[in-house]
This record gives sequence, structure tokens and C-alpha cells, in this order.
Amino acid sequence: MPVLALITETGVELADPDTPHVKVTDLGLMRGDGIFETVLVVDRKPRELGPHLARLARSARMMDLPEPDRATWEQATATVVDNWTGSPEMALKLVYTRGPEGDPDERTTGFALGLDIAAPVIRARTEGVSVITLDRGIDPGLAQRAPWLLLGAKSLSYGINMAALREAARRGASDVVFTATDGSVLEGPTSNVVVAKGRTLYTTPPHIGILPGTTQAAVFRAAEKAGWTTKVEPLTVADLREADGLFLSSSVRKLTKVHTLDGEALPDSTALHAELTAAYEAEY
Amino acid sequence: MPVLALITETGVELADPDTPHVKVTDLGLMRGDGIFETVLVVDRKPRELGPHLARLARSARMMDLPEPDRATWEQATATVVDNWTGSPEMALKLVYTRGPEGDPDERTTGFALGLDIAAPVIRARTEGVSVITLDRGIDPGLAQRAPWLLLGAKSLSYGINMAALREAARRGASDVVFTATDGSVLEGPTSNVVVAKGRTLYTTPPHIGILPGTTQAAVFRAAEKAGWTTKVEPLTVADLREADGLFLSSSVRKLTKVHTLDGEALPDSTALHAELTAAYEAEY
Repeated sequence: MPVLALITETGVELADPDTPHVKVTDLGLMRGDGIFETVLVVDRKPRELGPHLARLARSARMMDLPEPDRATWEQATATVVDNWTGSPEMALKLVYTRGPEGDPDERTTGFALGLDIAAPVIRARTEGVSVITLDRGIDPGLAQRAPWLLLGAKSLSYGINMAALREAARRGASDVVFTATDGSVLEGPTSNVVVAKGRTLYTTPPHIGILPGTTQAAVFRAAEKAGWTTKVEPLTVADLREADGLFLSSSVRKLTKVHTLDGEALPDSTALHAELTAAYEAEY
Repeated sequence: MPVLALITETGVELADPDTPHVKVTDLGLMRGDGIFETVLVVDRKPRELGPHLARLARSARMMDLPEPDRATWEQATATVVDNWTGSPEMALKLVYTRGPEGDPDERTTGFALGLDIAAPVIRARTEGVSVITLDRGIDPGLAQRAPWLLLGAKSLSYGINMAALREAARRGASDVVFTATDGSVLEGPTSNVVVAKGRTLYTTPPHIGILPGTTQAAVFRAAEKAGWTTKVEPLTVADLREADGLFLSSSVRKLTKVHTLDGEALPDSTALHAELTAAYEAEY
């Protein structure tokens, strides 16, 4: 059963997730005008909550939303965690919108929602995924040139991300790596790209218009402790093909290996994946 | 007072818009995964309802949503119109989402919501607006090359459109014309661009990744009857500057003249605006 904690004017309040709590006029719904985070909670311990809340605040700044009150969001998180009776692993969504249109007090909408992690996501952690590259249609300089395009904000306007995943399904794959117009690698619709080559881990830099990854950062931190070198730099699709290991990282998928890219099988990275996953898990 | 008609499994039902009717798990909220239309209703008569419902169906196809049932949406429209007690003019929002995540019956969410038209929109119809051009970061071939980017679908993922309007406000303007990476003109965040030069009206073609305009089409239809030539073809920012009249068209703004573009005053188009508005109004 999902667990829901609403942020109200007076505090945080447990609520029934099967009952409607959002007005039709909410700008989060009507305009995708809001932001979110997805936090992995394992055995009642939220992972990377600090970085997630920092990124929520960053997204809020990018979208001119009032700064989220950290203590309140921590309390909402604790409320969901304390009331969770499901599996040991939970996906915790933090959702924050501009609130109902025309509200005289300009009240925002905020809630924390604990959900079971979908079975295919869990399965993919061991089995890996087949991925296609899809053109995202932007150049790597755009995010800095045009901040109104909200590239790198984790906004509720995720229609494109969902459409890309449907396109992957149509092509018999289960995930996507977006590419820029110059052929460079961006990110997945709901993940970051992590590449292993020799004893170095690579990921793409946020300034090209992607979301800085909380799980990617945790994996890099863990890998550094285990003696890996880490680099944040532009990658090409050729870099992905020539890697010893290609992975997608996100809170709920942790580090998931990519076994097939654009229909071509990649080298077996099972051992690498096991090593990096063990390093990541040792962080908690 | 807003008027709300919910589309339920058994039909259409009048509901209180101040009561929450949307679940937190609704994918329209969580992922901007849904579509909408805004219909102008004047004296209880919806304008261009047929084209709006056709465009809703087109957006649904682009986003792999089940085809909206036309009779149901007409009934929802009628329910709102019949219960409207506000001003003679109403903005009617039709909203259709993929529904709550994980719903075993994959039920969609649908509602029609009648709202007053915001005072600044009404005022701008006579006073005109100051507009800035903003880079949309895409090239004109992208929409056809990458349908997963949903360019030209009227999706709920309107975060960018709202951010662009905030950027305009920051620069002392009240609206935006998006440009493509080759400098060509796309559309406004919630409008189409209409240019008058001599006795010809111009607008930009949908295949470059913009929404085909219902009001733009109505204005063109009306203008043709009044002896104007109309052309749908690519435009540059220079074309906008050199026009006899530059207008933004949308359901609620009708045809609104642009008096200032990127800080430069444009030639006075008051007479042209009056002529075209009269032709448009004569359609109803």
C-alpha cells in the first residue's frame, strides 16, 4: 500500500493515497509546473536524502518556486518512512508544485509518497537492460544559453521522458540514452549514464543540460574509495560502445547494466557491475 | 466561480472545483503525462469546438493515449456551459491524462473546467502586448525526425512555456515568441504567430514542431472571406519586424497585437487589428 504525507499549512499530515488530494486547478497538473525527487529508502533508511533535498532546492530556484523548507520535507519523509509496511525497499516521491492557479495566498502543493518499486526495475538490476539512443534535439551549449528551457531541472513536465520510454518499448528495448545534436551523450529519461573503462568511471557533465545524478554521485564516491578514478566529461555514443561497462544509474534502479545498445550486444559487464554495486551498497 | 465537469466511468458529472478530485498518483500530475485544450466560450457558445476536439484527438495519438470519446467531451463541455453563471466569456479547459499510476483498469482522467478569463488577457486584446523572442533550442526539422519529443502535441508538460513567460516578465515584457536554432520563428508559449503584410496574412507551418492553431485557422478563414490572401510558411524574426502587423492568436486572447518586439516599438497596427478582429468575430 502506498503511504502519503501531505504538507499542509500547519505541518505534515498522513493521508489516504486512494483519496483525491489535488485540485483540478493545480498548476502541477495543468502546466507541469512543479518539481520532484525520487528517493530510494531501504530498511527505513532514505539514501542520499541530503543531496535529493539539495537538488529539490536547486530545481525550485530554476523554476522560481519558493525555496522548499528543508525541515518540513524531512518531516514528510520521516512520516512516510515511519508508516511504511511494505517491502524493505521503497521509492519515495517528493512532489512540489506551484499550487492551485489563482490561489489568493499563492499556496504551493507538496507531498511525499512512498511506493513499491516496480518489479521490472528490480529485475533489471540483475538482468540488465536493452537501451536505444534517441535524439533529444538540443545542443550541449543550450542549457547555459537558455535557462528558460529548464534543462537540468527535475520538473513535473516529464512528458518527453515518458514518450521516449514508450518509443524504446516499441523498438523492443526498455530504456533510452538521449543524445545531443552533436552526437554527444546526455542522460537517460530517468537516469544518468555511467561508463567504466579500465579503472576509470565516466559520466556526462551537468552543464550540458542534464540532471546531476544523486546515485551517480554516490557510485562515484564509493568507487573512488575503492581505488577507481572518476571523470565527469563529455562522452560520445562510440565511448559507450567501446566501454568495458555501460550503466544507467538512478535511485530506484541503483546501477543497472546495459547489455544491449541500439540492438548490439555489449561486452559482458557482470563482474564489473557486481564490484561497483558492492562498493555502492557499502556506502549505506 | 469555476465550473467543473468530471468524466467518470458512467458519464459526466458536475463537481465542486474547490474540492480535490485528482489523486496524487495521477500521471498527469506526476509526469505531465496528459493533454489539454483551452476553448473560448462566448455567450454560452463554444468557439471552434470541433477543431479543438480534433486537436485533442491528435495530441492523444501523439502521446499514445486512448482516443478521447468525442460525444463524452461534448457532453462535458455542455455541462460546464449550462452551469456557467459568470461573465459572458469563459475559458474552458479540457484536460485528459493517463490517469493514476498503476491503476489495474488503466483508467484515464478527464475533466472540463470553466474559468473566468484573466483580466490582463482581456486588457491585452485592446492594448496589445510587448513581446520578446526566446531561443527554443530546436531546429525546424526536429519534430519530424524525433516524434518522441512531442513537439506540436498540446501536452500538460508546459513547464518550459511557463518559464518562458516568467523570463518575459523579468525583462519587462508580457509574452514570448520562440525561435528555432536557425533563427526562424516558431510560436508563442500559448499562442500562434500571425503576421500581416500588405493584404496577406502569414503564419508558421505546424511541421516545424508547433501546435496548429485553432484561432489562427479561424482568423485565416475569416480573412480569406474578406479578401485577404493567407500563407502558411516559415518566417524569420526580420519578417516580424518588417510586418505591417504582428499578432499573437489563441482562444482566450483572440487576436492580440504586438506593439513592441524585443524592446523596439512596431508600427501601429490598430486599424489592421480592428479589421481582422471584426472579420474573426463575424465568424460567430
